[in-house]
Amino acid sequence: MIPTFADIEAAALRLAGKAVLTPLLESPELNARLGGRLLVKAECLQRTGSFKFRGAYNRISQLTEEERRRGVVAYSSGNHAQGVAAAASALGVAAVIVMPADAPAVKIANTREMGGEVVLYDRWTESREAIAAAIAVERGATLVPPFDDPQIIAGQGTCGLELAAQAQAMGLLLDVAVVPASGGGLVAGVALALSHASPGTEVFSAEPEGFEDLARSLKAGARVANEMGEARSFCDALMASSPGEIPFALHRKLLGGGVAVPDADTAKAMAEAFSRFRLVVEPGGAVALAAALSGKVPVKGRTVAVICSGGNVDAGVFCRAIG
Amino acid sequence: MIPTFADIEAAALRLAGKAVLTPLLESPELNARLGGRLLVKAECLQRTGSFKFRGAYNRISQLTEEERRRGVVAYSSGNHAQGVAAAASALGVAAVIVMPADAPAVKIANTREMGGEVVLYDRWTESREAIAAAIAVERGATLVPPFDDPQIIAGQGTCGLELAAQAQAMGLLLDVAVVPASGGGLVAGVALALSHASPGTEVFSAEPEGFEDLARSLKAGARVANEMGEARSFCDALMASSPGEIPFALHRKLLGGGVAVPDADTAKAMAEAFSRFRLVVEPGGAVALAAALSGKVPVKGRTVAVICSGGNVDAGVFCRAIG
Repeated sequence: MIPTFADIEAAALRLAGKAVLTPLLESPELNARLGGRLLVKAECLQRTGSFKFRGAYNRISQLTEEERRRGVVAYSSGNHAQGVAAAASALGVAAVIVMPADAPAVKIANTREMGGEVVLYDRWTESREAIAAAIAVERGATLVPPFDDPQIIAGQGTCGLELAAQAQAMGLLLDVAVVPASGGGLVAGVALALSHASPGTEVFSAEPEGFEDLARSLKAGARVANEMGEARSFCDALMASSPGEIPFALHRKLLGGGVAVPDADTAKAMAEAFSRFRLVVEPGGAVALAAALSGKVPVKGRTVAVICSGGNVDAGVFCRAIG
Repeated sequence: MIPTFADIEAAALRLAGKAVLTPLLESPELNARLGGRLLVKAECLQRTGSFKFRGAYNRISQLTEEERRRGVVAYSSGNHAQGVAAAASALGVAAVIVMPADAPAVKIANTREMGGEVVLYDRWTESREAIAAAIAVERGATLVPPFDDPQIIAGQGTCGLELAAQAQAMGLLLDVAVVPASGGGLVAGVALALSHASPGTEVFSAEPEGFEDLARSLKAGARVANEMGEARSFCDALMASSPGEIPFALHRKLLGGGVAVPDADTAKAMAEAFSRFRLVVEPGGAVALAAALSGKVPVKGRTVAVICSGGNVDAGVFCRAIG
């Protein structure tokens, strides 16, 4: 069940011409201020506005003809929903997305626009897992999980493969890569890709403060969940309660550690991405950049790559961050 | 004095690895709505946040050793200032930028951060041309003009060369390209590049309504200036009073026409770039996208490329546009 580097290479072939080869950007002025080299992988420019399209497309494109005919189902109110809807649509596969009835109207509309059939549920009285499972049984549809799946992880890993190739083309050896983490599919895939394509690179996860279940799991040597206490964060995409089982099998072998980032630093990173890189980065997509800019992951004297993993953010939230 | 396609090819070699190969993005959902194919050349991701770096680097890199030693001078309060400062800095050449004393502090700070020596003048009592000319004489510095120069135009043309190659790699023939215009260096260079690299493509300029001097010049068959009347626009980068002489020699031969875009459409285009492409585009950089989205340049049944030429915009202006 653990994906291999060969799975990522195969995913890259499937995604060629389908996913955006997102640019690797830098700012000489920012580098001068930091005393090192900071590279930003602008994954917010990916199809559907986040890395999620990579994994979803890689997974769905490997369904049998019979499975494709029966469609796919996923539950998500966020980037995974759009990634699955768009990937399924691109492959001519029907997709049901189970979303909470009180999800922002724009997210429901976006998912529909991308070809998804939206099934709403009441998040206070119903279980999205049960609804999705019932649809899977009823229609014979395949469930596309957000992170706990080897082909999803392999798809996300193509982002790391690109990063390694782009850094190499610039003549750079990456000392460190920092990657946002929720369930941990992206950071697992990127770490696997870099362990082969850039073996000298140390990989760190970045999470919002109070939701650093992966950082704590790495310290504990086993998966632990967030304590559901007072913690709040505006990083709506990074709310998974614990690392996925398959991702964590890679995390524990391949990550150098995890850092926790206060929302105030994340908002500053969004403002820097706006003014210096002209990128729209959502809160959850900006935590790795925030870790580098705030010094949690030092850039001085080193070459550090950060993944800005998504850019789906309401104008109001965005403007409060950059204002 | 008129640049040739060979000048653009030579510029592309000089800029390789120095300028960002900016991505060509599209949205299947937006395409479905428009009934055609809309490609966005994200030139706002260029070094210094606009296409201006291309022309400035191409020009300054061709100075003799003696000229380099004496430095360059330019007058601009906007994107050209930053383009010249950064290009000169990258080439180890001193740059003096003449800016109005009442320019936004952030623009003055950015120009300094990029290595420019800023000389301030009073825009009510002094002439920036006279000040720049005096500095040029005094220091033997070379004046880098914003658009009326064959090597500046050739540098901007590399953006069109990339566009043609990127469209070809996607298996697409471009029916139309729309390009923002002020003095017209970018649209002249892009039209020259496409006339060789994509000869079936019709090229249009886009300007803010009330400042469509290029559109009117094309109709008149000779350069005419904007009437300095009641017209106002928030497209601060597109305020040149008439097309440059050298650019217009190319415009009249190569452009299919020019369109004028109301600010309200430009603001909507900035909002669409934010939510659908996760790009920060400044008002003047969004006029070509606005022309396509508003139907001024129809997309239905065609493949239309627009250049989003810059992304240097204050948070306040940006948030009013996307809010």
